[in-house]
Amino acid sequence: MAEKKLVEAITSMEEDFAQWYTDVVKKAELIDYTSVKGCMVIKPAGYAIWELIQKQLDERFKATGVENVYLPMFIPESLLQKEKDHVEGFAPEVAWVTHGGLNPLQERLCVRPTSETLFCDFYKNDIHSYRDLPKVYNQWCSVVRWEKETRPFLRSREFLWQEGHTAHATAQEAEDRTIQMLNVYADFCEEVLAMPVIRGRKTDKEKFAGAEATYTIEALMHDGKALQSGTSHNFGDGFAKAFGIQFTDKDNTLKYVHQTSWGMTTRLIGAIIMVHGDNSGLVLPPLVAPTQVMIVPIMQKKEGVLEKAAELKELLAAKGCRVKVDDADKSPGWKFSEQEMRGIPIRVEIGPKDIEANKCILVRRDNHEKMEISLDELGDKVTELLETIQKDMLVRAREHRDAHTYVATNMDELEKILNETPGFVKAMWCGEQECEDIIKEKYSATSRCMPFEQEQLSDTCVCCGKPAKKMVYWGRAY
Amino acid sequence: MAEKKLVEAITSMEEDFAQWYTDVVKKAELIDYTSVKGCMVIKPAGYAIWELIQKQLDERFKATGVENVYLPMFIPESLLQKEKDHVEGFAPEVAWVTHGGLNPLQERLCVRPTSETLFCDFYKNDIHSYRDLPKVYNQWCSVVRWEKETRPFLRSREFLWQEGHTAHATAQEAEDRTIQMLNVYADFCEEVLAMPVIRGRKTDKEKFAGAEATYTIEALMHDGKALQSGTSHNFGDGFAKAFGIQFTDKDNTLKYVHQTSWGMTTRLIGAIIMVHGDNSGLVLPPLVAPTQVMIVPIMQKKEGVLEKAAELKELLAAKGCRVKVDDADKSPGWKFSEQEMRGIPIRVEIGPKDIEANKCILVRRDNHEKMEISLDELGDKVTELLETIQKDMLVRAREHRDAHTYVATNMDELEKILNETPGFVKAMWCGEQECEDIIKEKYSATSRCMPFEQEQLSDTCVCCGKPAKKMVYWGRAY
Repeated sequence: MAEKKLVEAITSMEEDFAQWYTDVVKKAELIDYTSVKGCMVIKPAGYAIWELIQKQLDERFKATGVENVYLPMFIPESLLQKEKDHVEGFAPEVAWVTHGGLNPLQERLCVRPTSETLFCDFYKNDIHSYRDLPKVYNQWCSVVRWEKETRPFLRSREFLWQEGHTAHATAQEAEDRTIQMLNVYADFCEEVLAMPVIRGRKTDKEKFAGAEATYTIEALMHDGKALQSGTSHNFGDGFAKAFGIQFTDKDNTLKYVHQTSWGMTTRLIGAIIMVHGDNSGLVLPPLVAPTQVMIVPIMQKKEGVLEKAAELKELLAAKGCRVKVDDADKSPGWKFSEQEMRGIPIRVEIGPKDIEANKCILVRRDNHEKMEISLDELGDKVTELLETIQKDMLVRAREHRDAHTYVATNMDELEKILNETPGFVKAMWCGEQECEDIIKEKYSATSRCMPFEQEQLSDTCVCCGKPAKKMVYWGRAY
Repeated sequence: MAEKKLVEAITSMEEDFAQWYTDVVKKAELIDYTSVKGCMVIKPAGYAIWELIQKQLDERFKATGVENVYLPMFIPESLLQKEKDHVEGFAPEVAWVTHGGLNPLQERLCVRPTSETLFCDFYKNDIHSYRDLPKVYNQWCSVVRWEKETRPFLRSREFLWQEGHTAHATAQEAEDRTIQMLNVYADFCEEVLAMPVIRGRKTDKEKFAGAEATYTIEALMHDGKALQSGTSHNFGDGFAKAFGIQFTDKDNTLKYVHQTSWGMTTRLIGAIIMVHGDNSGLVLPPLVAPTQVMIVPIMQKKEGVLEKAAELKELLAAKGCRVKVDDADKSPGWKFSEQEMRGIPIRVEIGPKDIEANKCILVRRDNHEKMEISLDELGDKVTELLETIQKDMLVRAREHRDAHTYVATNMDELEKILNETPGFVKAMWCGEQECEDIIKEKYSATSRCMPFEQEQLSDTCVCCGKPAKKMVYWGRAY
């Protein structure tokens, strides 16, 4: 049976999660590999998801006063080196341009791995007075990091992202913006991607190169591994001092600005796959599904079937749904299977008998539920169902996350959980990097974040037994 | 007077058009220069224009079946070299990446100057059967060309663009798509940018490296120079043969695909400036104006003025206008001058006396016309006026273009026109590149295109006097 063939083409996630992931990105036609090692083609089905992410995230940014700009993709080596921690963090993984046309360059240029240094160089000339503040700029672009091991969406040498860079008159305003954008990210993940996240702060070991504080949202994938899904950094005035970004304040004195940056990437598409996908393929939350409803005509060569399908399409499009008719010359079973692979939230089946009875079949992708409904209610039912699916997917993902969040009070418990029931592990920490290093070396787990919602699980550090300062989420991460 | 100061900050276009252009891009805050030679920062006011161009152009693309994708920004040297003409055209002006992280690369990568070779490499694996055709893909990205002389928007080492790349089963289908996209571009320029264009075909000398035929839209700037504003190329099966892109057709034989590509860039922003701008600064067509209406409160500290301004803003926003209130602590005269510099299509002036009389003043940016209108009609009047301005700007630009389009039948006439009354020159051509070379060398003018609308101006070539084959538009170009 055709339906089986396509499903059999992907490995089951229980058998080999990594292979399941690779199979899904390929079979759902999200990406293709290229001759450029570590870089991918994002195909129409994948890019359309990114466009929906961009549009909805950009609207949320603009509602908070963000303006978009575009800065060069190249950074002169001397500029990259101005902030000490930053260059140490990035220099080992950038691509260097050494020739322009037929001539060697006087100074090497790196392809931006991130644009803090360029924004600083720009702000240095653009900011003079308190009247020029705040600057709340963002750019949508691609960046390059010369990774050794790559995986589609999760880690590639080039990826698409947005990077916000702001400058403020006071430390408090910078901190407020840092937290504000983290919350924009977290709300976006929950409300649009149906993906629950833990909001918290990174430990010093895990923070961004050059940041005073890094905040993060951490999501749990279906295999129990964590995925850092967005970060927001407060730089204090460190970059401002390195680059000389000063302004004349209201009191007529020269002050350094306080800066932030924050970013989310095409990695989110990887997160959607690993949070919601199943053994039939991709499962897309309706708000980021390029096609939300696929109408499959049954016995489509019979008179009136394709016409009815087209009519239902118009009806649903008029309701604001992204809807298509699959009238390809393939069996319905094959089509069902293809749409499941692609994660289309709702399937409408309509054949001669249905038309006669003025009804059709709706099938939900997320839970495979089938329902028969009257054609008279189709419009309302489908829009209502899209909302229900969006909500149910978040509830299910949260239940999975909570069911895979554990508590460890000592190293034995930590080891047992990580090896036997992978997930988030909540455990107390003394605040010393040494304990993070030990846990990483022994169990390949890292501190994901110190969550804003702290709990006092015990009084002592899970590793060294000394007095605990913070509860930390630990996990193995992508 | 403050109003004067800002206007005086720009050179008049009659005095020095190039300097006027540079002054406008800076004073209207569209761009800033950077530490990266030949690259610019596109500031919020400039980028917002690009976002409006992108959105409206992308909608027109999608209406013709275009799907967006994203391909890597790097091209391995061996890939760039596969099509002979193409590599000769581009190799002298690409930026080369030679190191990734701390290690030299085994093969140099160029930063894409255009992506024909990457799309071919991708299509080679993605196309197998006639069922996979056509492919009508596009990407929005930045590209790099190592130009020696650069000017903001017109010619920079990095610029933003879209590049469409399609593959078809037949030569006819490829030719049809090439022309279709040229018409999408031309209609977009006229309907959205209010910029009339000549549609035509490039001579062999001027065509794209690797193309069988290049079609172009050519616009005339205010100084009488031409600007190539968009191009659409038919590659025939040349790239397909170089890259081995074959498919099994319905008749079960292997065939090469036929390809096209087409692109428009941030250069369009330069075109808007040079077609519509005046000595007070930028003049934006309403459809690409990030702010279409600026409300300037007069005596804004008087009770009720700011409240009324806010109320009018809500009213206009509800009508779908992009509207702001300028409540900065500056004089109205200064604000008027700033908004003129920024090209905002309509200014609304509202002060205590206007409020009392239930009226306000509207001022058009394009022709400086002032009108007094009742607040009761404001919403309808403004939306109507935005449409009128959009139309009038096209009419005016077309009149200017037509008034600066001349006919030459011999070299003396050609020289006289180019030197004394710069503009488009229509003249007959024998079809030999030698004559193009002579005209370029003598008068620095190039053949802009062989327009679709041919006229028989005379029987002989403007240069050599031999029998003429085509009417050509000639001009000095950006």
